[in-house]
Amino acid sequence: MAGKRERRYLRKLEKEEAARKEALKQERLDIKYMKEALKQAGKAAELKEVPIGCVIVHEGRVIARGYNRRNSDRSVLAHAEISAIKKAAKKLGDWRLEECTLYVTLEPCQMCAGAIVQARIPRVVYACKNPKAGCAGSVLNILQMKEFNHRCELSSGILEEECSSLLSSFFSKLRI
Amino acid sequence: MAGKRERRYLRKLEKEEAARKEALKQERLDIKYMKEALKQAGKAAELKEVPIGCVIVHEGRVIARGYNRRNSDRSVLAHAEISAIKKAAKKLGDWRLEECTLYVTLEPCQMCAGAIVQARIPRVVYACKNPKAGCAGSVLNILQMKEFNHRCELSSGILEEECSSLLSSFFSKLRI
Repeated sequence: MAGKRERRYLRKLEKEEAARKEALKQERLDIKYMKEALKQAGKAAELKEVPIGCVIVHEGRVIARGYNRRNSDRSVLAHAEISAIKKAAKKLGDWRLEECTLYVTLEPCQMCAGAIVQARIPRVVYACKNPKAGCAGSVLNILQMKEFNHRCELSSGILEEECSSLLSSFFSKLRI
Repeated sequence: MAGKRERRYLRKLEKEEAARKEALKQERLDIKYMKEALKQAGKAAELKEVPIGCVIVHEGRVIARGYNRRNSDRSVLAHAEISAIKKAAKKLGDWRLEECTLYVTLEPCQMCAGAIVQARIPRVVYACKNPKAGCAGSVLNILQMKEFNHRCELSSGILEEECSSLLSSFFSKLRI
């Protein structure tokens, strides 16, 4: 009996170890793709736009990129996430982005969170919170409402410091 | 004293009459523009898309039109309101649509309601409610949340029967 119990315990340890490894692997991938989103945010900063960037990943490949160009394009539809969603849909030839992960440097607004739900994106990763207007947990959590026909898995805090300091430095320059 | 009180009463009646006339005039205009939105919905129906149409009015003129083309364009960004907002911003050369009224045949979804708030559209008129997914009072009221930096004036029920029966006939054909 002792041997049986021991084997069961070992199997449990192995399972936990595998889950830890999987989580670590996912975190490394999340950091990798958030770096790509941060690069996009840098492009917005170059245009003196609020530095927000986004990438969409499908089967391990970045299939769409976007960065905030609201003032340059004179359209609210030039938010980073909307641009990326538009490109991803074109690439996949489908309005459903059902096997994609969206990475964005700032918590999505109500419009972008809405577009994510409409496009049925299963997983969203964002870097820093937007306490005044964020709709992935701050003001609302549009991504995870039981009333809608789609809910997302949500991770946050990946590269939070880097994405947040890019935003802070943009706004502090504005105030000078 | 009686004369003074009488004059005050007459002034009150005149004011009420003027307000009634103003409301009637506005309702007539709302019907006129909703008919334009309904025409747009008809275009969606022709493409076998869910028949939803939208127009945006600025200084008494329709400056942008849109109709649902989600399947045809293979993009969630082809919702009627998003198409119209995009065109209106291009026309006015500004992401702020601050002197516009948006007319739409069905209560906006979370994405479109979000875009309306982002574009700071001051007034929204919709025909029929969308109890399962509407975000202008049904599931949420994104258009009038005190937490956001913009709230809209909202009217509904204009040409409700016409817009609703277009939708019903579309869905009943689908079921055959």
